[in-house]
Amino acid sequence: MSSFIANALRGTFFMFFGLWWSVKYPLKYLSRRLNEDSRASRWIQKLDVLEGAAKAFFALAGMLAEQFVPNLSHVSVYSGQSQSWEKLANWQYMTMYFFYGLSGIVDVLSYSPLKLTLGLDRLLLSVALCIEGFLFCFQDYNNASLDQHLYSLLVIAVFGGALCTLMEVFLRDHAILEFFRTSFFILQGSWFWQIGFVLSPPWGGPGWDQTDRGNFMLLTMGFFWHYAAALLITTANSIFSRWYVVGRGNGRLRLYSGTLKVGVTCLQCPTM
Amino acid sequence: MSSFIANALRGTFFMFFGLWWSVKYPLKYLSRRLNEDSRASRWIQKLDVLEGAAKAFFALAGMLAEQFVPNLSHVSVYSGQSQSWEKLANWQYMTMYFFYGLSGIVDVLSYSPLKLTLGLDRLLLSVALCIEGFLFCFQDYNNASLDQHLYSLLVIAVFGGALCTLMEVFLRDHAILEFFRTSFFILQGSWFWQIGFVLSPPWGGPGWDQTDRGNFMLLTMGFFWHYAAALLITTANSIFSRWYVVGRGNGRLRLYSGTLKVGVTCLQCPTM
Amino acid sequence: MSSFIANALRGTFFMFFGLWWSVKYPLKYLSRRLNEDSRASRWIQKLDVLEGAAKAFFALAGMLAEQFVPNLSHVSVYSGQSQSWEKLANWQYMTMYFFYGLSGIVDVLSYSPLKLTLGLDRLLLSVALCIEGFLFCFQDYNNASLDQHLYSLLVIAVFGGALCTLMEVFLRDHAILEFFRTSFFILQGSWFWQIGFVLSPPWGGPGWDQTDRGNFMLLTMGFFWHYAAALLITTANSIFSRWYVVGRGNGRLRLYSGTLKVGVTCLQCPTM
Amino acid sequence: MSSFIANALRGTFFMFFGLWWSVKYPLKYLSRRLNEDSRASRWIQKLDVLEGAAKAFFALAGMLAEQFVPNLSHVSVYSGQSQSWEKLANWQYMTMYFFYGLSGIVDVLSYSPLKLTLGLDRLLLSVALCIEGFLFCFQDYNNASLDQHLYSLLVIAVFGGALCTLMEVFLRDHAILEFFRTSFFILQGSWFWQIGFVLSPPWGGPGWDQTDRGNFMLLTMGFFWHYAAALLITTANSIFSRWYVVGRGNGRLRLYSGTLKVGVTCLQCPTM
Repeated sequence: MSSFIANALRGTFFMFFGLWWSVKYPLKYLSRRLNEDSRASRWIQKLDVLEGAAKAFFALAGMLAEQFVPNLSHVSVYSGQSQSWEKLANWQYMTMYFFYGLSGIVDVLSYSPLKLTLGLDRLLLSVALCIEGFLFCFQDYNNASLDQHLYSLLVIAVFGGALCTLMEVFLRDHAILEFFRTSFFILQGSWFWQIGFVLSPPWGGPGWDQTDRGNFMLLTMGFFWHYAAALLITTANSIFSRWYVVGRGNGRLRLYSGTLKVGVTCLQCPTM
Repeated sequence: MSSFIANALRGTFFMFFGLWWSVKYPLKYLSRRLNEDSRASRWIQKLDVLEGAAKAFFALAGMLAEQFVPNLSHVSVYSGQSQSWEKLANWQYMTMYFFYGLSGIVDVLSYSPLKLTLGLDRLLLSVALCIEGFLFCFQDYNNASLDQHLYSLLVIAVFGGALCTLMEVFLRDHAILEFFRTSFFILQGSWFWQIGFVLSPPWGGPGWDQTDRGNFMLLTMGFFWHYAAALLITTANSIFSRWYVVGRGNGRLRLYSGTLKVGVTCLQCPTM
Repeated sequence: MSSFIANALRGTFFMFFGLWWSVKYPLKYLSRRLNEDSRASRWIQKLDVLEGAAKAFFALAGMLAEQFVPNLSHVSVYSGQSQSWEKLANWQYMTMYFFYGLSGIVDVLSYSPLKLTLGLDRLLLSVALCIEGFLFCFQDYNNASLDQHLYSLLVIAVFGGALCTLMEVFLRDHAILEFFRTSFFILQGSWFWQIGFVLSPPWGGPGWDQTDRGNFMLLTMGFFWHYAAALLITTANSIFSRWYVVGRGNGRLRLYSGTLKVGVTCLQCPTM
Repeated sequence: MSSFIANALRGTFFMFFGLWWSVKYPLKYLSRRLNEDSRASRWIQKLDVLEGAAKAFFALAGMLAEQFVPNLSHVSVYSGQSQSWEKLANWQYMTMYFFYGLSGIVDVLSYSPLKLTLGLDRLLLSVALCIEGFLFCFQDYNNASLDQHLYSLLVIAVFGGALCTLMEVFLRDHAILEFFRTSFFILQGSWFWQIGFVLSPPWGGPGWDQTDRGNFMLLTMGFFWHYAAALLITTANSIFSRWYVVGRGNGRLRLYSGTLKVGVTCLQCPTM
């Protein structure tokens, strides 16, 4: 069951940011349109810093979990491998988390007085996604063709996200690109969960048959159904957050942003 | 003969939109240039809504046909397969139609008071095309190399269309991109018909020889001749619709747009 | 020797346009800068029309040569094939020439009163290059691995040219893209000659050894030496034509453009 | 040990330019912002010319070293090959250096009175990188799968650099692209060193085991750790050079640029 938990944790990491962005970006555009004083942009900045810190923190937690948690040290997509081999798989995921951590640190530093070049945060996120994609491309699947198929599909989502984050370096704050990136992160998250269910079901058992061609067809379609779900979730969250703020009047937004601001302050001063 | 009908229906779906666009886009530019009052842009909007509704309706019809029509449930590009396998092929085409349906719904919603982000309709069409392409890439051709070759060629048209629709997200209303997309849709449509004729001729018989290398060469060339025909049709329709409107004087356009408007109204109020 | 001549003719076709562009584009920019009256732009237009007509004419000649010239009907990159097979190879080159012909016709029509959308000429050239590239990609090399290697290298030049012509649709009259395209056409031309020398030397003999790995290495490098030469020729022609016009004073340009205009007129009225 | 030295020399070539750019570009932006007289832009021009000359000189030195230095003429990534084969490997690296030399010459000529088109220097650098990438793609690894894996990883860095230099043709002086290119050059440099250590350790011995799958995993991850290091070095140099100039006051910059100017003058007049 440990391999399922590892994949579920990875999925949760990506799903968390996907869902968060699906709420954050519509609010950002709304608050810009409705509430054009500097207060709105200031709490968005604070949220960005918090988000970067959360990314760095979760990445660090992921690295530590992959390496040190005992029942994770047996995480393996390849059954029947020697001990040294399994550790390499863990190191691979650590490398992946490391670059997401780096991306989080750069997100935080973007708002520091260091004045990094604008767009460096998106570039680092794109680099992290590319490196994740290349790691899965060059992974040794040890003739487990269903594993390889599952990760090939994942790689589509990863490189899709990388391409669209790279375009954000040049077209910053483009609503469509942010929508696209959000949907790709939700897709990645839910597909990691799916991989967990397929290769090592939480109720035990050997995972799906690696040789049945029907499984390949079904999972290919399943991947795109996941994407349909990701698109629907992104759209629903976008419409809901817009309705929540606009549908209840302009005054509500100030209250809402005030609440968020209090929340942010609470997080910043936990002793308050 | 059922497999031929299925491919012909798929081909007709794409051909219909290709041919429609080859007439619509030249008229759109003309009406903008000649008739710059708000009436022209209003009936274009109504046509766009109708087009989206038609896309969603045809996609739904396609999904139902793939699943429930009895003589289609034996649709199979692979001869001699078990029952479960053939159903998967149907589900695959349903997935394809589902995303085109989604794209149609977003087209309609673009003109609703929800105020979706501009470009989301093109993005969804591009996603639908990409997913169609990936479905054909990951399809299991079961060692039928001629099938694989035919669909590889189709994938060129699909990804060509996807790339150019993706560029339209950023360069909206670009005449060249719309021309390009139109020609790719006509190509896709006619190539689905060709696939039907090659793999399951309507006059019965076993389809073309899967092992003759000459067939591969001929079909590769045939694909590009189809594209030449698609380009000629797009150009001819573009020139004809321009001549029909401009060559007969400006007054005619008002009449023409009036007729279209009446048609649109009739469609909207079928009880009228 | 016939196969050598066929490859030489193909090479000459691409080389001709490459060399012509390496002279035309520097002169175009110069005449725009120095001589900004409408006369300069008018003779450039006439040259463009002539160029399109030449492209269409050479493409037609190529199609007829591939099909009807007796000693070309045995053109074959594959030794020991049946008759039907060799005709398919000829049809393939005819398809290639056909799209270049189409591109030439669109070049001419761009200046006609039909008022084609700006950029359609570049799009058609890009389509012709893409189709040439795909034809070579899908060609059946019949296990002749050296043939495949030679055409793989050619495909780099073809798709390089296609990519840069596609960008010209959006960035029209961009000097760097035109320089790039010119160099790729010269490269394609000289590489067709090289293919002729390698696979069927004009002095007879069996062509190079298909199994020696050293040949593969040497030809890979040779391809890039050809490109170095293409870059040098493009640069040299560019500098020479600039020097010829500017280095000899502004007055010379008028004379020069006058000479060209006379030349163009002569070509237009051969009875003069 | 000779093969190690050859790889180390290649690595040093790329590392040198990477490190140099990681210092030069931040200074360029600073001097533009702080010191907007023409003097700053003049010494940056002189540095660019010097850099081009250095590139051409090192490339020439590399070509000569690959060909004539006796203990380099046995450079071979393939053990137990015939003499003719090894010379081809040398010629391959000479081709690579030749295009970097060409790029250096064009860098110098960009500031000459010839007035080359703006962006040609970046285009030539991009061409040199592409050609390096294609040379490694088409190289014959003679079934040494670890060699192939090492060079496949290198090719990622090479084409990454080529893509981003190509974008610089159109987006000249874009800080993010220059940062990206710098990091890719440092990565290339350090990976050539790594290749040297893996395939022919300087302390003798046979190189790493070509069949152990663990080596492949470890080197894949190692490549991305190298990239993490390259990113950190680029960022650190950027921050340090900014701090060195700005953190010590505006007056320092003039002194600093003065020092550089003296240095440049000394290099130009070695007899001074």
